[in-house]
Amino acid sequence: MKVIDVTMVRIYLTEGEGVMQSLLKRLHDWEKVKGVTVFRGISGFGGSGVTHTSVAVDLLMDLPVVVEFFDTPEKVHAILKHLESSIKPRHVISWEAKMNIMESEG
Amino acid sequence: MKVIDVTMVRIYLTEGEGVMQSLLKRLHDWEKVKGVTVFRGISGFGGSGVTHTSVAVDLLMDLPVVVEFFDTPEKVHAILKHLESSIKPRHVISWEAKMNIMESEG
Amino acid sequence: MKVIDVTMVRIYLTEGEGVMQSLLKRLHDWEKVKGVTVFRGISGFGGSGVTHTSVAVDLLMDLPVVVEFFDTPEKVHAILKHLESSIKPRHVISWEAKMNIMESEG
Repeated sequence: MKVIDVTMVRIYLTEGEGVMQSLLKRLHDWEKVKGVTVFRGISGFGGSGVTHTSVAVDLLMDLPVVVEFFDTPEKVHAILKHLESSIKPRHVISWEAKMNIMESEG
Repeated sequence: MKVIDVTMVRIYLTEGEGVMQSLLKRLHDWEKVKGVTVFRGISGFGGSGVTHTSVAVDLLMDLPVVVEFFDTPEKVHAILKHLESSIKPRHVISWEAKMNIMESEG
Repeated sequence: MKVIDVTMVRIYLTEGEGVMQSLLKRLHDWEKVKGVTVFRGISGFGGSGVTHTSVAVDLLMDLPVVVEFFDTPEKVHAILKHLESSIKPRHVISWEAKMNIMESEG
């Protein structure tokens, strides 16, 4: 399996922040990221120390959400620079990984 | 905590592709992977540019799905080689990680 | 985007084990981890070879669950040492990553 270097990114939000849709739109329309996947956690807590859990109905809309994507290191670097002002500190995690490509690519 | 090297793998599918069950069966029966976990995303978009989201009922069956597993680098290398023809390019991400083992192992 | 080194951790459980709440409490109250997110898988299998899937209602409570958190390498190292006796071998995966911080931090 032929591979190239990519950077994986996970952005940690909560549904209550209401920024997910605009972030997805931005990644899709502006940044032209190839693939983005959004996962909803069933429980969690963040910097506030408040536990967000799906057990409490009134917190249902404030469950943790992770927006995950990967692209070449150069493109991810540029994207994270663009997003810098709109994403909270300590809420973006990234690391180096490999992505499969066609034998004829790359 | 004693650890050994493993390779983490995430394979990005959509439910609509209908390949998840056969992939799981293959990983379980043939490849003898010790552990596999499948996560369903609540939204996302892929190479097609079409956004898959659980809001639109008719797209419910085409939500993003991630099949995640880890094993020794050698075993993962072999598995990915076997899967090469059945997995789309740019849909497999892997990276090096550490796994805890018993003090008496390894 | 200014970044620092962190260690990402994923702990693989099943809901049936009934250890998730105590683990979250421990990470929150004792270890003072800044952020933890819990994800429920829709299917999976573990060392037992038994497939846990949300299709079978009687297995609903034994779906795979992943407890994910990140912190500085030193803090994660200490936490994993504390958890050593309460977490099964081959169920904790960790790797090095980067976390965004404020320009003024660091």
